[in-house]
Amino acid sequence: MSASIAQEQSDLHLEQIMNALDNGALYDARGHLHGLYPAEIALLLSSLPIDYRNQIWSIISPEMMGAVLVILQGEVRTGLIEQATAQHLIDATNELDISDLAVLVGDFPAIVRDKVLEKKGDSRLETALSYDGRTAAGVMDLDVLTIQADLSVEAVLQFLRGQPKIATNMDSLIVVDEGDSYRGMVHISTLLTSDTHLVVSDIMALDKAIALNMPVTDVALLFEQHNILSAAVVDEQGLVKGRVSIDDVLDIVRDEAEHVVLSSAGLDEEHDLFSPILVSARRRAVWLAVNLFTAFLASWVIGLFEATIAEIVALAVLMPIVASMGGIAGSQTLTLVIRGLALHQISASNSMKFLGKELAIGAVNGIVWSAVVATLAGLWFSNPGLGMMLGGAMIINLCCASLAGVLIPLFLQKKGIDPALAGGVLLTTVTDVIGFMSFLGLATIFLTN
Amino acid sequence: MSASIAQEQSDLHLEQIMNALDNGALYDARGHLHGLYPAEIALLLSSLPIDYRNQIWSIISPEMMGAVLVILQGEVRTGLIEQATAQHLIDATNELDISDLAVLVGDFPAIVRDKVLEKKGDSRLETALSYDGRTAAGVMDLDVLTIQADLSVEAVLQFLRGQPKIATNMDSLIVVDEGDSYRGMVHISTLLTSDTHLVVSDIMALDKAIALNMPVTDVALLFEQHNILSAAVVDEQGLVKGRVSIDDVLDIVRDEAEHVVLSSAGLDEEHDLFSPILVSARRRAVWLAVNLFTAFLASWVIGLFEATIAEIVALAVLMPIVASMGGIAGSQTLTLVIRGLALHQISASNSMKFLGKELAIGAVNGIVWSAVVATLAGLWFSNPGLGMMLGGAMIINLCCASLAGVLIPLFLQKKGIDPALAGGVLLTTVTDVIGFMSFLGLATIFLTN
Repeated sequence: MSASIAQEQSDLHLEQIMNALDNGALYDARGHLHGLYPAEIALLLSSLPIDYRNQIWSIISPEMMGAVLVILQGEVRTGLIEQATAQHLIDATNELDISDLAVLVGDFPAIVRDKVLEKKGDSRLETALSYDGRTAAGVMDLDVLTIQADLSVEAVLQFLRGQPKIATNMDSLIVVDEGDSYRGMVHISTLLTSDTHLVVSDIMALDKAIALNMPVTDVALLFEQHNILSAAVVDEQGLVKGRVSIDDVLDIVRDEAEHVVLSSAGLDEEHDLFSPILVSARRRAVWLAVNLFTAFLASWVIGLFEATIAEIVALAVLMPIVASMGGIAGSQTLTLVIRGLALHQISASNSMKFLGKELAIGAVNGIVWSAVVATLAGLWFSNPGLGMMLGGAMIINLCCASLAGVLIPLFLQKKGIDPALAGGVLLTTVTDVIGFMSFLGLATIFLTN
Repeated sequence: MSASIAQEQSDLHLEQIMNALDNGALYDARGHLHGLYPAEIALLLSSLPIDYRNQIWSIISPEMMGAVLVILQGEVRTGLIEQATAQHLIDATNELDISDLAVLVGDFPAIVRDKVLEKKGDSRLETALSYDGRTAAGVMDLDVLTIQADLSVEAVLQFLRGQPKIATNMDSLIVVDEGDSYRGMVHISTLLTSDTHLVVSDIMALDKAIALNMPVTDVALLFEQHNILSAAVVDEQGLVKGRVSIDDVLDIVRDEAEHVVLSSAGLDEEHDLFSPILVSARRRAVWLAVNLFTAFLASWVIGLFEATIAEIVALAVLMPIVASMGGIAGSQTLTLVIRGLALHQISASNSMKFLGKELAIGAVNGIVWSAVVATLAGLWFSNPGLGMMLGGAMIINLCCASLAGVLIPLFLQKKGIDPALAGGVLLTTVTDVIGFMSFLGLATIFLTN
């Protein structure tokens, strides 16, 4: 995984711009922005420390501002909106389509938002503002091209030729009946290759439409499983309200993946890489506090065996091994289950078979590695009994780790708690507590007087 | 994150099929497969324990087998290929296009592969077998529709009308000159809305083509940044060799995301959730061995202070707190850097600014939490000096954790080692060693006689 050409290119952009700003050469910096796509500028801005970022923001044209703000997310976006004047924000919305506007305007200050709403005068925009971003409604395009099912292919082609430029991500047209109810989809390549005398309803595909409130993760799954490029979104009456296309799905998949990775470390994908130090410190502190609680719990368990440790200090030297190996083994199982749940690979019906398999793996590795650590520890401290206690505790902890790795995420999912967020902390609590308790407990029973 | 409808549906499929097989009702099981898409059957198969899976596999038609095998990956695919007869495999390839065949045939037993190659007699297939799956060449479609730049729109439309069904993911046509060299792309919606007397070269977009050896992660970035739906793939001479489309990119992004999550736990996305116990146990053992080494290293550090612990047993009770808090704080920084590297957000030019910010966060949280733990520990053991040592060690370890969280992944990336795979282990080694050493070291200096 050495640096790719794309990596080198974006590194170079960043370096040139930071150098230009360090030298106060704002004009040079503007030159380096020339010809970049909105997404490239968005990446640049999110990679810049805030003082650099605001300087660059001040030299970007309003049209580009709009395109860039739509791509950016979370704090970086709201931070840049705060930096822009009301007039710039209003100008930035000029070129945006209604769906992008809906995404953006929600983050505008109320007074600017009202002005934009008034200027556009499109009632769909106000409706769109109320949609939940985690549903199909929140990600769909509102500008859709629908055709009547009873038209001939020839009539459709004629109609299209009169249209201004169709969106280039428009691979299919949505077919409706006279009442604007959804009927099916016609891929435009089908229009090109079909007999022009046929009627739309003869050539349309009967793809199912998506409900407004379908969760975005289900939308993504549907696209991947049914291999589709776009789908109509309908309300409860079956009326067409919008359209989701595969480029929206790509964003969903990317966001979901980020969420899983970041939340496992108690982080949030909405946060700015360069947010102010005290803001970041306060956010991280929450996660540290949760962990501190579990760390003190583990300490309390150790504290129960203070007398034993005073008698055999080697226990203190060896005890982190049991806890650590349990944590590693458990997190492997946990990771598989969290991924299996996300991909819908693991569910109630196969989870017990999976648990059985994981327990067996835990037992096998517990026995193998306990033999290794028992021997090593026995030799190190010239105390075979100590080695045996360590080995016994390892077997117990690795089996418990497998159990916890399967059951914790299943339990969290059932309770509606994100397993990617809370799973790791709970698992470590279990493996620490059981690791210390089993090792020190066994030693207390068998080794002390 | 309660169960979605899609989740419930796939759970239901799985449950019905497992029940049917448990009751020996293979005919019922076949009924439950009816009407499912290949991707849904692929998901089902990968969710089934191996004995169930092989039973279901035996009742799937050869055409469906081909479509399902193309979707499956890694071990699940090779396992099912082993279970199929040579004739079934050959039949399974009947309906596949040349790109899918290239993906699949590489996993076939040599004798079957040769038969398929002979039967198809397409020289492109043999070339495709040599492509690297991690490059554009490895994921591109080989069946491309090219048009000459000097044709009129009318002539192109006429040509297309004579074509058999175009692939429905064909949103654009690739434009070439007489020598088959790449010139540009024409979106088919542009063909529909343009004046029919125009010439292709007037309406084509001058999108850049992709090189055969471009890494797939760069391909994905290009699609996302330039907002494109398909791109031509060309060789060094500029000759068109294939086409990558956004549905391929979706697979790339999904695979990449899986890789990051799984490799952080030392797991591999190619592996079967239900591989045999001993096979799984051996694989997991490698990761446990790596961890065991770092755990013994930490123990060795503790062992250096055995005399100190013998004098003050409370040190043993409290020492895991320092190591654990360092590990958590460091993994937050590490996660941000690994993600930043993947998104090309962090590079040499901004990494020192980021390091400065992370160090400051480490210091702030170190001071805040060291005050908390110092007070708690001081009260618990009625020993303010002990609390102060704990607090001091926490500050040291949190700062070192920030440093390690930034520098370790940057170093690994530079050395061509995947930071997602090795970053966590190295970080924990650092935070464990420094955590134990600073706490026990401070205590030895200031608290012992």
